[in-house]
Amino acid sequence: MIIDCHGHYTTAPKALEAYRQQQIAAPSQRPPAPSISDDQIRESLENAQLKLQRERGTDLTIFSPRAAGMGHHIGDASTSLAWAQVCNDLIHRCVTLYPDNFVGVCQLPQSPGVPPANCAAELERCVRDLGFIGCNLNPDPSGGYWKDPPLTDKWWYPIFEKIVELDVPAMVHVSASCNPNFHTTGGHYINGDTTAFMQLITADLFKDFPTLRFIIPHGGGAVPYHWGRYRGIAQDLKRPPLRDHLLKNVFFDTCVYHQPGIDLLTRVIPVDNILFASEMVGAVRGVDPETGHYYDDTKRYVDALSLGAADKQKIFEGNARRVFSRLKIARR
Amino acid sequence: MIIDCHGHYTTAPKALEAYRQQQIAAPSQRPPAPSISDDQIRESLENAQLKLQRERGTDLTIFSPRAAGMGHHIGDASTSLAWAQVCNDLIHRCVTLYPDNFVGVCQLPQSPGVPPANCAAELERCVRDLGFIGCNLNPDPSGGYWKDPPLTDKWWYPIFEKIVELDVPAMVHVSASCNPNFHTTGGHYINGDTTAFMQLITADLFKDFPTLRFIIPHGGGAVPYHWGRYRGIAQDLKRPPLRDHLLKNVFFDTCVYHQPGIDLLTRVIPVDNILFASEMVGAVRGVDPETGHYYDDTKRYVDALSLGAADKQKIFEGNARRVFSRLKIARR
Repeated sequence: MIIDCHGHYTTAPKALEAYRQQQIAAPSQRPPAPSISDDQIRESLENAQLKLQRERGTDLTIFSPRAAGMGHHIGDASTSLAWAQVCNDLIHRCVTLYPDNFVGVCQLPQSPGVPPANCAAELERCVRDLGFIGCNLNPDPSGGYWKDPPLTDKWWYPIFEKIVELDVPAMVHVSASCNPNFHTTGGHYINGDTTAFMQLITADLFKDFPTLRFIIPHGGGAVPYHWGRYRGIAQDLKRPPLRDHLLKNVFFDTCVYHQPGIDLLTRVIPVDNILFASEMVGAVRGVDPETGHYYDDTKRYVDALSLGAADKQKIFEGNARRVFSRLKIARR
Repeated sequence: MIIDCHGHYTTAPKALEAYRQQQIAAPSQRPPAPSISDDQIRESLENAQLKLQRERGTDLTIFSPRAAGMGHHIGDASTSLAWAQVCNDLIHRCVTLYPDNFVGVCQLPQSPGVPPANCAAELERCVRDLGFIGCNLNPDPSGGYWKDPPLTDKWWYPIFEKIVELDVPAMVHVSASCNPNFHTTGGHYINGDTTAFMQLITADLFKDFPTLRFIIPHGGGAVPYHWGRYRGIAQDLKRPPLRDHLLKNVFFDTCVYHQPGIDLLTRVIPVDNILFASEMVGAVRGVDPETGHYYDDTKRYVDALSLGAADKQKIFEGNARRVFSRLKIARR
């Protein structure tokens, strides 16, 4: 069985975006939740994520609202709450329609300068009431200006307490950049990954939360490529070796869109810390003329690795079941 | 001959830092230039950069002021100008004392919100009067808040015109981060590299400046590891293939501190676009317990590549001579 731990509902029916535009235009009013039929949801998935699952031979996608759409920098905490509820409810409907193909991960109602504790109730609702198994946590709700404290600051502890209580992992994933310096998927996403990992090196977050689990998406940003740099910086800072310091709690996905990148990832990061993912339908939608296959068909790159079957099973399924401990779907 | 294109004067005598602290404490006063003897300069280099050159078998370091020390976010344009002049003059003294070992690259007197044209005179002084062969250009003078426009904005064009007129390359290198989210050498540096490259994808800067040459340090940040992502994003954005679009003008150094990283760099980036560098004495100062050698002894990683002698000569020397066209030092 192949579990893709990183998929966003990037193909949602247009009514969702219309709702969001209404909300942004008049933040003080609360527009009614968008009217979307089951058939519209089916149509939005059948020719996109479900088609690609079938074509590529993957089974289950751990599915969350569009990351760039979270837009935590827009409006205030009540804007973010209404928007998160609408988006999460829609993910729940996808999962209900296709329980064999999707399982839910939620967007949090973050807002710059607002204590993350504010997100606990929506996380709890998604996990306990909707059966979600994880959340996406935005380390920069300001959208490219990085105005809130680092993830290792006690500012974040109340949401970590709830995450630990619910026993769900968090994917550390920024949203759209409103800073013209950062292209969203090519600059801000990768920087967010790199930044978060480096924050974790400098602190002792996992001493305080030994069971907290983070997934750093997009192959860990720049981290595996610069693994020597990070090992060396940790050493200069008198931190423990990264394996002991972070790798019981931090995992990387395989959203790296060429063979040399996946080769490097699996060469430097222990196989127990790598979770299969494609981010489809996501940041890169084209076909690589050098291979004739979709850039984001990451299963091909993992298939091509010279790893044993047991290691590939960990990457494709075993590690996801361990990290997403609430995932109880039957093996196939 | 082996040319290290990325070295900073991180070991400068303490009087330099004392001057800087005086300057920061009373920005409106102009402290006198620090008093540093030739012997103090010799001592600061003999047991550091020069010793490492000898031990590692490298010949010439393209040498610039400490990058984290540039601190363009501190004070105003006049603060930055005085500080750049002091730092550049000190580099000039190093080069004068050891003309076989060092050649100069300058710090620019950037300041957030101040038009980069303001840096043209100091660049011209360094190149024409002091014999410098390049400059370090900070894409984020605000020190981690990214408040100025992207490098592709016309805001920057006056300094590019001067850079082109003088026929020197620019290393795109941020300085210290004053944003607590970004560790300077582990977060901000790598993000700066990644960010700049992605900015270049989205625009046509090199149509306007066909001879402008940028070096993206630290192995290009996250870019080579995510080369498939960047090729794919460029394709989705209807940009030309990256080879045609950027690789006549953009080069990567080899400041990647482990063998798998250098292997990936040389696997995906054409050999003509890679310049040897170590950043020593720099971001990582320890010995890698896995190899028994310094993390930043990047010559070992390049030596170990299965490339032909002609390709290695390009990385070690030929490309640097091409990119730094003012470098006229005799071959050894």
